[in-house]
Amino acid sequence: MDNNRIMIAVDTQGSDKGPATIVKGACQALQDNGNLIVCLVGDQTVIDEALKGNNAPMDRVRIIHAPDTITNYDHPVQALQRKPDSSLVKALAELRDDPSCAGLINAGSTGALLVGSMMYLSKPGERVRPALAAILPSENGGFTAVVDTGANIDCMPSMLVQFAHQGTQLMKDMYKIESPRVGLLSNGAEESKGNKLVKETHEMLKKEEGINFVGNIEGTNALSGDCDVLVCDGFAGNMVLKTSEGMARRLIKDIVKYAKKSGKMEYMEVVNHLMAVYDFNSLGGAIVLGVSKPVIKAHGAANEASIRNTIKMLMNMAENKKVFVREDN
Amino acid sequence: MDNNRIMIAVDTQGSDKGPATIVKGACQALQDNGNLIVCLVGDQTVIDEALKGNNAPMDRVRIIHAPDTITNYDHPVQALQRKPDSSLVKALAELRDDPSCAGLINAGSTGALLVGSMMYLSKPGERVRPALAAILPSENGGFTAVVDTGANIDCMPSMLVQFAHQGTQLMKDMYKIESPRVGLLSNGAEESKGNKLVKETHEMLKKEEGINFVGNIEGTNALSGDCDVLVCDGFAGNMVLKTSEGMARRLIKDIVKYAKKSGKMEYMEVVNHLMAVYDFNSLGGAIVLGVSKPVIKAHGAANEASIRNTIKMLMNMAENKKVFVREDN
Repeated sequence: MDNNRIMIAVDTQGSDKGPATIVKGACQALQDNGNLIVCLVGDQTVIDEALKGNNAPMDRVRIIHAPDTITNYDHPVQALQRKPDSSLVKALAELRDDPSCAGLINAGSTGALLVGSMMYLSKPGERVRPALAAILPSENGGFTAVVDTGANIDCMPSMLVQFAHQGTQLMKDMYKIESPRVGLLSNGAEESKGNKLVKETHEMLKKEEGINFVGNIEGTNALSGDCDVLVCDGFAGNMVLKTSEGMARRLIKDIVKYAKKSGKMEYMEVVNHLMAVYDFNSLGGAIVLGVSKPVIKAHGAANEASIRNTIKMLMNMAENKKVFVREDN
Repeated sequence: MDNNRIMIAVDTQGSDKGPATIVKGACQALQDNGNLIVCLVGDQTVIDEALKGNNAPMDRVRIIHAPDTITNYDHPVQALQRKPDSSLVKALAELRDDPSCAGLINAGSTGALLVGSMMYLSKPGERVRPALAAILPSENGGFTAVVDTGANIDCMPSMLVQFAHQGTQLMKDMYKIESPRVGLLSNGAEESKGNKLVKETHEMLKKEEGINFVGNIEGTNALSGDCDVLVCDGFAGNMVLKTSEGMARRLIKDIVKYAKKSGKMEYMEVVNHLMAVYDFNSLGGAIVLGVSKPVIKAHGAANEASIRNTIKMLMNMAENKKVFVREDN
């Protein structure tokens, strides 16, 4: 095998749009990067069928047959134990056991992926609960990593401090930011603002070594670019992520309607412009932090473009040869 | 005094833009509605100066001289006690003591307004902590009341149930909705989703009489129109409000930039269209729920249009002769 080649495991099952979309996105990613090998994990017959007509370079395609699927209706822990032939279990095992496998993308059950990542990819002696980071475009043209966006719903201050470290490492690795600015999501910029969790975390982050803490950030400025890492519990982070997404989608839909109603179809140019920045679906998925190899949770409704972008993101990470945990954790 | 006339107290101090903007907005509201009397509370000299050139119908203007101001830097409770000559204290006293005074608008310290509302306007024997409701335009063309948006940051489930009742009453009164649909903000639509607070509240709302509970609502659909009242703790509600506002403003700014860059100034029509729906600043303020007379907290940076709209909102409420508390509370 060519030494520059990097393999990414792609779980073809569990997504809303079905295996064909996932396979199509993976084939597009193969065209993008000649060093990529995709390891498609799922039902062999379904994958074979999906590969047809995609002109995939078959010397860079591996298939692991896994006829079973873990769905959103399965209990994560039970499913991981009771479905050894599921695509997720086989993909996680491949990622853990094969040194040439550098990352995993999955668009299925978030819970199962998080628990599975912890079960298969914790560093020895470590049981950090993984966090989910979404990297969103900020107003100044850069990116902000929102940590956590939904893996940890009820948090302690120490967990938010952990998110600060994981987010810092992520932005150092991915964007080569020397000292990423860490903001704490709150209901006001003033130090006195926040719920109990935020106030206690604020005090801890002020003193925490290795963290470039810039203070509280309110919702209005969550994605203004005032920080590189936005720390929050998974509930609040999920609000920021989904409210932003919902609002962007709504304004875009509103312009489409306005264009149709007024008959001025040139307004669709505005829509296309906005879609290029604000189509969260195509941005790539949320990154699982705190595990030994890069794992990305793609949107359940991810389209081909999103799968393609997510694989691209994983390739970047793998080429940086970084794992997204603190070495000293 | 004409029997149809309704007086609204307007605190001219404490806003970011100064008394002249507040007075200007009030004068515009006087033009809108011939039954409105405004009671301008603040420094007499400053108000006299601000009134010049606004063509105010002086028979419908009252002035209460209050030379002192409560600012965002003041401790709310201490300021209310130690600044008897402040505009907020005088305005609250006027609202409490004068039966012809039907409402109050203030663009200053939220904390002082909330504590003051509780001190001056609680119903006898009642000490409900007031909640702040923001009424936001929903995607289907209606409105959604988000309760609470920041008055109560650390909440118990019983408080969220109280918000559900207050919001229900508000939407019945303001929009004549017979049985307002109440949604609970969560990180997923499924019943199993939510932090501890949301899960416990969900169980209570399911059984609560007088509440038309439609289940969990996630951030993406917070303002889709899937509910008339969105119940949440003040921290999460503040996130939804401010993230929506920030995102809408950002997309609009982005279109302006795109129009300028491409030289296609016709795109500004799209901007104007969106501004009419999404300019949160002009939507009117947040309503203080749980007090005996309508009180509205205007945005600190409220412009004339916002003050004008907020007074219009208060007039509607006063003309409905409704107070926004449950009678059986």
